[in-house]
Amino acid sequence: FGGFDFTDNSHRRFNPLTNSWILVSPHRASRPWMGQQEPSFKSSEPEFNTKCHLCPENVGASGDINPRYLSTFVFPNDFPAVKLNQPSLVDDGKEKTIKDRFMKTRNVEGRCFVICFSPKHNSTVPRMKDGELNNVVNAWTELYLKLETEARSDGSPYKYLHIFENKGTAMGCSNLHPHGQAWCLNVIPDEVDKEFQSFSKYSREHASCLLGDYITLESEERERIVLENDVFLVVVPYWAVWPFETLLLGKQLLHSLADFNCKEKMELVSIMKKLTTKYDNLFQTSFLYIMGLRQAPFNATQQEKDNSWFHIHFYSPLLRSATVRKFLVGFELLGEPQRDLNAEQAAKLLADLDDGVHYTDRL
Amino acid sequence: FGGFDFTDNSHRRFNPLTNSWILVSPHRASRPWMGQQEPSFKSSEPEFNTKCHLCPENVGASGDINPRYLSTFVFPNDFPAVKLNQPSLVDDGKEKTIKDRFMKTRNVEGRCFVICFSPKHNSTVPRMKDGELNNVVNAWTELYLKLETEARSDGSPYKYLHIFENKGTAMGCSNLHPHGQAWCLNVIPDEVDKEFQSFSKYSREHASCLLGDYITLESEERERIVLENDVFLVVVPYWAVWPFETLLLGKQLLHSLADFNCKEKMELVSIMKKLTTKYDNLFQTSFLYIMGLRQAPFNATQQEKDNSWFHIHFYSPLLRSATVRKFLVGFELLGEPQRDLNAEQAAKLLADLDDGVHYTDRL
Ligand SMILES: O=P(O)(O)O[C@H]1O[C@H](CO)[C@@H](O)[C@H](O)[C@H]1O
Ligand SMILES: O=P(O)(O)O[C@H]1O[C@H](CO)[C@@H](O)[C@H](O)[C@H]1O
Repeated sequence: FGGFDFTDNSHRRFNPLTNSWILVSPHRASRPWMGQQEPSFKSSEPEFNTKCHLCPENVGASGDINPRYLSTFVFPNDFPAVKLNQPSLVDDGKEKTIKDRFMKTRNVEGRCFVICFSPKHNSTVPRMKDGELNNVVNAWTELYLKLETEARSDGSPYKYLHIFENKGTAMGCSNLHPHGQAWCLNVIPDEVDKEFQSFSKYSREHASCLLGDYITLESEERERIVLENDVFLVVVPYWAVWPFETLLLGKQLLHSLADFNCKEKMELVSIMKKLTTKYDNLFQTSFLYIMGLRQAPFNATQQEKDNSWFHIHFYSPLLRSATVRKFLVGFELLGEPQRDLNAEQAAKLLADLDDGVHYTDRL
Repeated sequence: FGGFDFTDNSHRRFNPLTNSWILVSPHRASRPWMGQQEPSFKSSEPEFNTKCHLCPENVGASGDINPRYLSTFVFPNDFPAVKLNQPSLVDDGKEKTIKDRFMKTRNVEGRCFVICFSPKHNSTVPRMKDGELNNVVNAWTELYLKLETEARSDGSPYKYLHIFENKGTAMGCSNLHPHGQAWCLNVIPDEVDKEFQSFSKYSREHASCLLGDYITLESEERERIVLENDVFLVVVPYWAVWPFETLLLGKQLLHSLADFNCKEKMELVSIMKKLTTKYDNLFQTSFLYIMGLRQAPFNATQQEKDNSWFHIHFYSPLLRSATVRKFLVGFELLGEPQRDLNAEQAAKLLADLDDGVHYTDRL
């Protein structure tokens, strides 16, 4: 690569999971910022907030009283994006008129759940004890198993469970109480499906697993590794879009949480806690991110099962400080995603940070 | 569609431009909002701001003094995401090793420009006079023509000019002074390319133009039309993701601004002003949006030319009020884009609004 400087020269990288290109402009991180400032994290939130709809024994969004829960609390979302027992759209998918080409519409059914991680209003994943975080992983697993069982019955509308967390109000989270969500649909959501298609294509072409091969490569290169333990690897993927985007990968083929033994769960807890501790320590703030699990669909065909290599995506917008984030806007959304530091730079920054002591314990 | 209610029942719609699905949950707009509030627009900004890097005769971001410009002012971005004359990455695109599968990297070159719309710091598109807005359209056209000419010379790195505006600090805009940007690359950016591919596929399959057919259909249906004049049509596309996303379409095939005659330019000015006036009137605020033009690439092949039907995308996040926006986050980015009111509802709201008198003139 004669004279080419990956820390200064612009270049494009390819994301083999979504099949798209991104623009990397590593010299751009030094431009001055006079735009929006994110609110700083207030560590002064109380452990119990009388006005919070998610705190134990308070009135929930539906008007019902929340139970006096002690670890995690899973309940149906009061304003679900998908519901059960809808009237059916009659559409055979055939294109008979020009209208059918442009107004393609499909049924969707399902359920939405909220998962309170902890009764403590002011907790966050990196501040939780291993045991508490283990309860979260167990709650995810139980929900997955419960819906997987229901999915086996005739006419069940459950195909895919998307478990995610929106962390921070700037990430659209409407309540700071530590919680995530799980939306279960009768279809594989589009972004998940794009990944599955890439995995299928890769295994057809190379008779091998895309994520398995990628892990082997990153383990050799060691340039983008943020964390590693016996079971998992965390990298800033070569094609990361968000400034501190990471990919948490099972090192071996685990299809879903249902496959995890106790040791694997413990290692997941441990690496999630370390990763989010690093995130918080990076800019000494409660880090913003969205995260989403990728697992096997229900009633998986053999091909779907082969494609389901457990992983978690973390997309994090903070770029330079607790208050300055990256915006993916006019060029990014209408042209091509663009980033201001390269994946190796982000990985190095994260790798060098303490993953044990949270910055608030040092103050 | 027996019993199916498009204003209440969840469904999925397909975007034929990007080849992806979106989830529509029209009942969801009524959920309570306790999340982030956007700052309200302060109409008290002065016409000239001594601290602004874009105001005439002030010091620009580079340290140079801005000219005393009277209409529009186009200059190179001081922190460009792409540059000219970079060292070259030597990559023949062939996959020889596993690394080549995962670390696909390409050269990118080009230039970035800033386009100040007006010397008046507190102006916005809907507040500009037709003549002033005409200057903006002329500035875009001149830039397009200039780069198109340069693109014809040997070894020129210009292939596609992406003209866009980020409006509002919440849309990543770092300075409220009315301005847009134009990034010129040696490649067609990925999102634009996806559209071109959809257009090619459509014309192969139907021997006809995707956008031409879509305009015919929307003109018959009349359910999603926001504005119309002799030359242009504005619709909320059937597959809109952002709450008040619109698509401004040339009714006939115009490849780029270079094709526009005076009447067509005037009609563009007129409809852009009306659309942004409606946007501002919707929530009585200076509306947030990102917008981007789609035009013919430089040195276009015949197929590229056939695919270039002039249009403008407007993505706008405000959902319910001047301060409550839609967040596209954990489900949307990692699962599938989801919206809370349907395209027809959004179109009706916009269509019913005054497009002549700006709300601030009525106060
Ligand atoms: O160039 P600006 O307006 O300072 O920057 C804004 O627009 C760019 C192009 O969409 C983005 O890359 C930046 O993240 C955003 O803040
Ligand atoms: O359900 P919440 O947390 O209130 O809502 C948040 O997450 C949802 C799922 O990503 C989004 O659709 C909403 O726009 C966002 O505000």
